[in-house]
Amino acid sequence: MRLSQFHLRTEKETPAEAEIVSHKLMLKAGMIRKLAAGLYTWSPLGLRVLRKVEAVVREEMDRAGAIEMAMPSVQPKELWEETGRWAKFGPQLLKIRDRKEQEYCFTPTAEEAVTDFFRQEFSSYKQLPVNLYQITTKFRDEIRPRFGVMRAREFLMKDAYSFHIDEDSLRVEYRNMYDAYSRIFTRLGLKFRAVAADTGAIGGSASHEFQVLADSGEDALAYSDASDFAANVELAEAVAPGPRAAAGEPLREVATPTQKTCEDVAALLGIPLARTVKSVAVMGTGDDGAPQFTLALVRGDHVVNEIKLAKLPGLADYRLASEAEILEYLGCEPGFLGPLQPRRPIRVIADRTVAAMADFVVGANKPGFHLAGVNWGRDLPEPEVADIRNVVEGDPSPDGKGVLRMARGIEVGHVFALGRKYSEAMHCSVLDAAGKAVAPAMGCYGIGVSRIVAAAIEQNHDAAGIVWPPAMAPWRVVVCVINPKNDPAVTAAAEALYAELNAAGLDAALDDRGLRPGAMFADIELIGIPHRVVVSARGLDAGTFEYRARTASESEQLDRAALLEKLRA
Amino acid sequence: MRLSQFHLRTEKETPAEAEIVSHKLMLKAGMIRKLAAGLYTWSPLGLRVLRKVEAVVREEMDRAGAIEMAMPSVQPKELWEETGRWAKFGPQLLKIRDRKEQEYCFTPTAEEAVTDFFRQEFSSYKQLPVNLYQITTKFRDEIRPRFGVMRAREFLMKDAYSFHIDEDSLRVEYRNMYDAYSRIFTRLGLKFRAVAADTGAIGGSASHEFQVLADSGEDALAYSDASDFAANVELAEAVAPGPRAAAGEPLREVATPTQKTCEDVAALLGIPLARTVKSVAVMGTGDDGAPQFTLALVRGDHVVNEIKLAKLPGLADYRLASEAEILEYLGCEPGFLGPLQPRRPIRVIADRTVAAMADFVVGANKPGFHLAGVNWGRDLPEPEVADIRNVVEGDPSPDGKGVLRMARGIEVGHVFALGRKYSEAMHCSVLDAAGKAVAPAMGCYGIGVSRIVAAAIEQNHDAAGIVWPPAMAPWRVVVCVINPKNDPAVTAAAEALYAELNAAGLDAALDDRGLRPGAMFADIELIGIPHRVVVSARGLDAGTFEYRARTASESEQLDRAALLEKLRA
Repeated sequence: MRLSQFHLRTEKETPAEAEIVSHKLMLKAGMIRKLAAGLYTWSPLGLRVLRKVEAVVREEMDRAGAIEMAMPSVQPKELWEETGRWAKFGPQLLKIRDRKEQEYCFTPTAEEAVTDFFRQEFSSYKQLPVNLYQITTKFRDEIRPRFGVMRAREFLMKDAYSFHIDEDSLRVEYRNMYDAYSRIFTRLGLKFRAVAADTGAIGGSASHEFQVLADSGEDALAYSDASDFAANVELAEAVAPGPRAAAGEPLREVATPTQKTCEDVAALLGIPLARTVKSVAVMGTGDDGAPQFTLALVRGDHVVNEIKLAKLPGLADYRLASEAEILEYLGCEPGFLGPLQPRRPIRVIADRTVAAMADFVVGANKPGFHLAGVNWGRDLPEPEVADIRNVVEGDPSPDGKGVLRMARGIEVGHVFALGRKYSEAMHCSVLDAAGKAVAPAMGCYGIGVSRIVAAAIEQNHDAAGIVWPPAMAPWRVVVCVINPKNDPAVTAAAEALYAELNAAGLDAALDDRGLRPGAMFADIELIGIPHRVVVSARGLDAGTFEYRARTASESEQLDRAALLEKLRA
Repeated sequence: MRLSQFHLRTEKETPAEAEIVSHKLMLKAGMIRKLAAGLYTWSPLGLRVLRKVEAVVREEMDRAGAIEMAMPSVQPKELWEETGRWAKFGPQLLKIRDRKEQEYCFTPTAEEAVTDFFRQEFSSYKQLPVNLYQITTKFRDEIRPRFGVMRAREFLMKDAYSFHIDEDSLRVEYRNMYDAYSRIFTRLGLKFRAVAADTGAIGGSASHEFQVLADSGEDALAYSDASDFAANVELAEAVAPGPRAAAGEPLREVATPTQKTCEDVAALLGIPLARTVKSVAVMGTGDDGAPQFTLALVRGDHVVNEIKLAKLPGLADYRLASEAEILEYLGCEPGFLGPLQPRRPIRVIADRTVAAMADFVVGANKPGFHLAGVNWGRDLPEPEVADIRNVVEGDPSPDGKGVLRMARGIEVGHVFALGRKYSEAMHCSVLDAAGKAVAPAMGCYGIGVSRIVAAAIEQNHDAAGIVWPPAMAPWRVVVCVINPKNDPAVTAAAEALYAELNAAGLDAALDDRGLRPGAMFADIELIGIPHRVVVSARGLDAGTFEYRARTASESEQLDRAALLEKLRA
């Protein structure tokens, strides 16, 4: 591509409307233009990047044996009512009424449409497994679209759906997709983690999110520094620490007149926060079905994980206890609560870490006082023990390899083992080997193609602009011509190099726009081209080209052979 | 592609819902599945064909210098109100209301969006001309969607928009696009004509439709048998015939008691229909602005062309005259009308053919009578002469080359010289060489990508199914294996050939599904694969492959070299 024949329009100013760096840089580089809230036009430059991502996704899906098809954007209400999602999806589902007053939606995902296709096209276990995918425009009517294409309303998504005669087959394909996704994000040059995730609204039994690591990410992740373990902080297991130390201190009451938090108590007593225990009072349901007052204990520097807590028996629908309930069960106001000597019988659940503590400090159930030197077994009964806290930096990795690090991530892919939720709801079945009609097990696998573009920028940028991973760059290399109009020899040499690079499959552009070098280089850096080659009269005389990698701070003078070697690397 | 790893599902029965052959065959071949009225899922097989068409369109647009981008599907009402099209587009515009009660539409075309992009991105004549295109999903809420993807509501369209500093530049690009379209349809292997067309609702000054010729086409075309002239019948010029013959008969009144049509009069008098003249009474507007009674005369075997008539002075808003008006001006009831001896002054417009007639027959303005032997100049004044009829088969071609033939066509492409309609309405301007802000002239260029798939089938099919032009075929060649499970040598030979063909870029599929030969061949014919090669034990022994072109009625036994030569042809 000759840039004089292309449309490139960069901005010097940082657009005020953009909050995060990818949005800013996509606007500055002229990759996108806002048409309305959450709706973006992809400029020629932006589309080149989007298509590169799309091509990698398609290649790897094909390689993994998935078969591409295309379902309509506009889908009838009746279809969505079969699974109840017409109502359940909520206001993110963009509803449409046609000229005949029939209702439709703009598809945000296509479980219903693909299951409808499947039930018409497939009839036997012999045709399974099958994985059908599409790369099409989707729509979610976000209440607050923001961050450019990171959370746009209209976006490009790859969605795949697999169908299986049994769970074993689903597991195999789930792993196959997991591996395909790993190849995709690796090829795209992204630092990412596959994290075990909560299945959220789509439902099902197993799921992993593929997260691009970036400080601006919305999701908090924990990952091992020594293995590929990664999980959403909400779901990461906090493993049990080593055995409990022996009691070394006597139980004693300490005055903490105004100290209601663990931090304040630790400061007053001059002890580490890790010696204190926090008591969170909630109401669960006892074995008899009656409300059950429960204290959840975590170390002072830890945080209760509500998802983990709710998975314990009797706590599925727990809520925080009221002050009246706290007073009734513990005889004390909040701030000085603890598991010792409740006024009425209570359930005590200690986090694994708390269960391993000795000589710790808890509230005394007496206003203005805490208890120090508390020890399990001696001062109070051994508690019910469970993992009920969020992991923190430095915790051992649950896979036994290394310790956990924290990062923020941007979700760009998601694999779900859906099970039979959709196939059963839509009365979709195939005949099994015994001739019996069975609902197929399903998996679904999404990739936010347009979001990847923004996520890659969040992860790869510097003060000068975008730093594309090579596989996503609009061009791998730009050949810059200094003074194209004034020096025919320079122009001819640049044209020859440009042609040679493209013939070698190196995806080159020629910057023949005739800009001053400073403005030209600033553009090429801003739009993130991995390699820049400058053809100038001086270089021609010396038989060299000026080469600079986007990530380098200095240029090098290279002869043709050395240059080609660099670009091929 | 191994067909055992693909999803192919053909139907033996012809689907009742389909009215035209392309719809029937697309359903039988399993290319599409209906999701709702006018909404189709493209199966893996269908999508392969659609993508082939898309790729050819993209390559030729790129070659022509157009630049690809992508605009949102969902576009805000405010944008469409700038041009007045929110109201004017009518119920085909699918309107959408989001969760915030803001109004949008699903884009049927993108003049507004691209002009909005242009006015933000372009500022100088130096950046022009530019041609921006996209290949995206569009929606028209057809009142009666039918014929499968031929007139679907959701469809894939390539739309391009060019911007110019002046009309000369627009004309150059219009021709450039005309040529690109000709290359596209030629590469796709379609018989087509570019016809001068009415500009319809989009407006503008020049336009050509690209029509694929097929009996089921909705549009009536006239084209020369000796040149590339083609036009919509509505717009084709009926050229003036040779000079008028001299009067040979006396004017006389003939009794036609019940003969009110030219056909009946000619039959009664025993003369050719081409000797009679039909008088059509309409009300136009005189030079003084008052209603003007007008007789439009065409030969008895011709039909008045309303578009041509309305282009004449005073007839822009003409309507048929009422019986009362006819009685007032001609003193006679319909059926016996003519231009002689009106009761009040009238305007007489003779079609070019009528003006060249002598000794003709017209109504006598007297119930039950016609006049025969009528001659211009002698019996009534020379008339106003104009081209006011539809052309018919055998008329001379307006370009002077050959005679006109009639055909039916399916519109698959359209080029428009739009002028400044959109740029002016949207206050879009660039600075010209003199530094003055001027609205750019625009062209727009559409191709119905998904419709091409159906149009190609309308033109290319036989009793066994689709006969794809090679550029659109899902695969160029299918290698069929007889008894893949029973004969390892056959399977190995087929695999080797399949690999060899793909390595040679011949886009081969391997039919390793293990079907009986009859069923396998029927599938391969139905889905229209241009070349079929059968690998069998018998052939292997003889060192040959059984080759058959889709268009051939017999197979040939070819050795490897001859086979490759055939497939490369």
